[in-house]
Amino acid sequence: MPNLSGVKFSACSSGIKNEGLDLGLVYFEEPHLFVSAYTRNRVKAAHIHYMKKMEGKKIKALLVTSGCANAATGKEGVKDLERLAEVFSKNLPIEKDQIIFASTGVIGKRLPLDKIIDSIPHLKKNLDSSRIEDFAKAIMTTDTYHKIAKGTFVGRREYILVGVAKGAGMINPLFGTMLSFLFTDFPLRREVIIRPFRASLKESFERITVDCETSTNDTVVLFFPEGPLDEEGYPQFLETLKGVMRELALLIVRDGEGATKVIHVNVRGAKRKKDAEKLARRIARSTLVKTAFFGNDPNWGRIMAAIGDAEVDILPERIDILIQGERIVKGGKGTDFDEELLKRRLSAKDVELEVNLNEGKASFDLYTTDMTYEYVRINASYRS
Amino acid sequence: MPNLSGVKFSACSSGIKNEGLDLGLVYFEEPHLFVSAYTRNRVKAAHIHYMKKMEGKKIKALLVTSGCANAATGKEGVKDLERLAEVFSKNLPIEKDQIIFASTGVIGKRLPLDKIIDSIPHLKKNLDSSRIEDFAKAIMTTDTYHKIAKGTFVGRREYILVGVAKGAGMINPLFGTMLSFLFTDFPLRREVIIRPFRASLKESFERITVDCETSTNDTVVLFFPEGPLDEEGYPQFLETLKGVMRELALLIVRDGEGATKVIHVNVRGAKRKKDAEKLARRIARSTLVKTAFFGNDPNWGRIMAAIGDAEVDILPERIDILIQGERIVKGGKGTDFDEELLKRRLSAKDVELEVNLNEGKASFDLYTTDMTYEYVRINASYRS
Repeated sequence: MPNLSGVKFSACSSGIKNEGLDLGLVYFEEPHLFVSAYTRNRVKAAHIHYMKKMEGKKIKALLVTSGCANAATGKEGVKDLERLAEVFSKNLPIEKDQIIFASTGVIGKRLPLDKIIDSIPHLKKNLDSSRIEDFAKAIMTTDTYHKIAKGTFVGRREYILVGVAKGAGMINPLFGTMLSFLFTDFPLRREVIIRPFRASLKESFERITVDCETSTNDTVVLFFPEGPLDEEGYPQFLETLKGVMRELALLIVRDGEGATKVIHVNVRGAKRKKDAEKLARRIARSTLVKTAFFGNDPNWGRIMAAIGDAEVDILPERIDILIQGERIVKGGKGTDFDEELLKRRLSAKDVELEVNLNEGKASFDLYTTDMTYEYVRINASYRS
Repeated sequence: MPNLSGVKFSACSSGIKNEGLDLGLVYFEEPHLFVSAYTRNRVKAAHIHYMKKMEGKKIKALLVTSGCANAATGKEGVKDLERLAEVFSKNLPIEKDQIIFASTGVIGKRLPLDKIIDSIPHLKKNLDSSRIEDFAKAIMTTDTYHKIAKGTFVGRREYILVGVAKGAGMINPLFGTMLSFLFTDFPLRREVIIRPFRASLKESFERITVDCETSTNDTVVLFFPEGPLDEEGYPQFLETLKGVMRELALLIVRDGEGATKVIHVNVRGAKRKKDAEKLARRIARSTLVKTAFFGNDPNWGRIMAAIGDAEVDILPERIDILIQGERIVKGGKGTDFDEELLKRRLSAKDVELEVNLNEGKASFDLYTTDMTYEYVRINASYRS
């Protein structure tokens, strides 16, 4: 698969984290437009305040820090970014209003500006169109692998869309995920892409949750060159955008903190999609359901309890529940399923959980993880 | 402290659970009235359907099963209770509409009627006014200790109020807790007590949560003899009721599944109590906050993130956060607190977490637990 021409990546260890890559830079040879989506959390990271002022502008660089979220840092957090913009504009062929930022990591700490500024020569020297993997690694926190998804599509010519993302905790994106960046050479105008971009978000990042904790830093950005629309390629572009976003979302949930499996929660037969969504999200946030899945325990009573607690009017006596395709609840009561066999089938890396309300035709599905000792370990000792 | 006269308790191991007491019986020599509150979960246990039909009646017996919740058992679950009422009426000096039931345990299993019926002679033989401790033990599931609270008060004569309760998982009572039974010899009429009973619930059981999972079986019942009100003793009765309920609620949260500490979440300075409650509940359900407390980590960024995710309009730049009385966030930003010292103070069994929004005068507080390896262990292997 060819690289995006004119888009260069680099990464380095600046010392924000104790070890590993923690600074990622993207440089666009030609100015690019972007559309973005941010967390619905009312406590927002400094970069989100900063980027909101940059909306509609053309930019040439993106700097991402990991290990420090630059959230709950007040006005100083935004000023730190303004200072960085100024310094970068003196060291790269960009204006100071041509760089944007994103951060992830511990909330409440200021960015170590000196360490970042000291790293600029190294970041600049290493810029290369082939280094997207390093960039994807530099934005990781508790992720166990880096996340890249690509797609190509054809219009008047061949185009590329490539995206990177990171998880792995505080994942309950409702307007984006922790961090995800998508790059394409398909020319667009902002007014054309804003709506389809949001639609794709709804079907990808908004369909996963690890711990039902919406982050302060969730950010998704799509970068693209400005230009007249290639009508022929547009439908394929939209398909590719949806596919790449969905792939990244699944990579995030697969790498959820401490997860041993991905649970696909599919609520069907609802009167309204809104109800199906409430139920799916309530099941996915149940620590009792998530720990039962960790124990390969088809403990459907906990699923029924979560359903009953979702603030949706349901008819318990109509509910069917299927796990791995096996009907374990019919009409609200347990069936005579082979529990030992089902336990073995639950030990898979992918588990299908279907709830059918048998009341209507609306449905909603999302992906979540089990809850494990490792989740507790990671989060009881994250900062130490 | 004297026993309640005319109220007898017994317990036995009937085999519903693999080991330990699992059947508890209360027998009232004189018919008693009761007021009760049940779960708001839309999936309700059979005993709740049964007891709703008994409201306003005078009863002489209460049978409680642990190890089997008799929930999601459909009409058959209620019929099983009708059958038990009939059998008990032939073995105790009661009519068949003078017994009520409550259950706790695994959801989705029918009650083993034969085992229960076989236990009647034993239960009957052991009835004694001193056996409340056995009864309190018989209603336990994952509880690590039994829970009893007592109070005496004086009106025209001395009265007693004694309550028992059980936890320890699926605890997020909004109309009651898993199971709690309160007994008094203070004569009352139902219409007098219903409102104060609900008010006491709101200030006790509704102020605790272990895992934010509202059970299918939550039940609180207060039993009392019918009679003209002792006006002199009524204010003290109300105080005692509130005190005993609060003590039981705190006993439940202290014994929360896997908990190493109790966190008192106190949200102050809100414009409306409703907002303070939303924030306190959102913080208390955050697995990231709860695991951080397990790790004695004053990771206030996670508290800020939970606050921002509570669907309450807040001003992040006004928020103060205090842990163990130490101000660690002022105006939305971290202070220069001594982290090592605070870590040590966080290792206490009781932790005070105060959030001040500095916007108004409303407040709300509740008690929750940390989230630990042990919570995962208990719930990944509950049924095995």
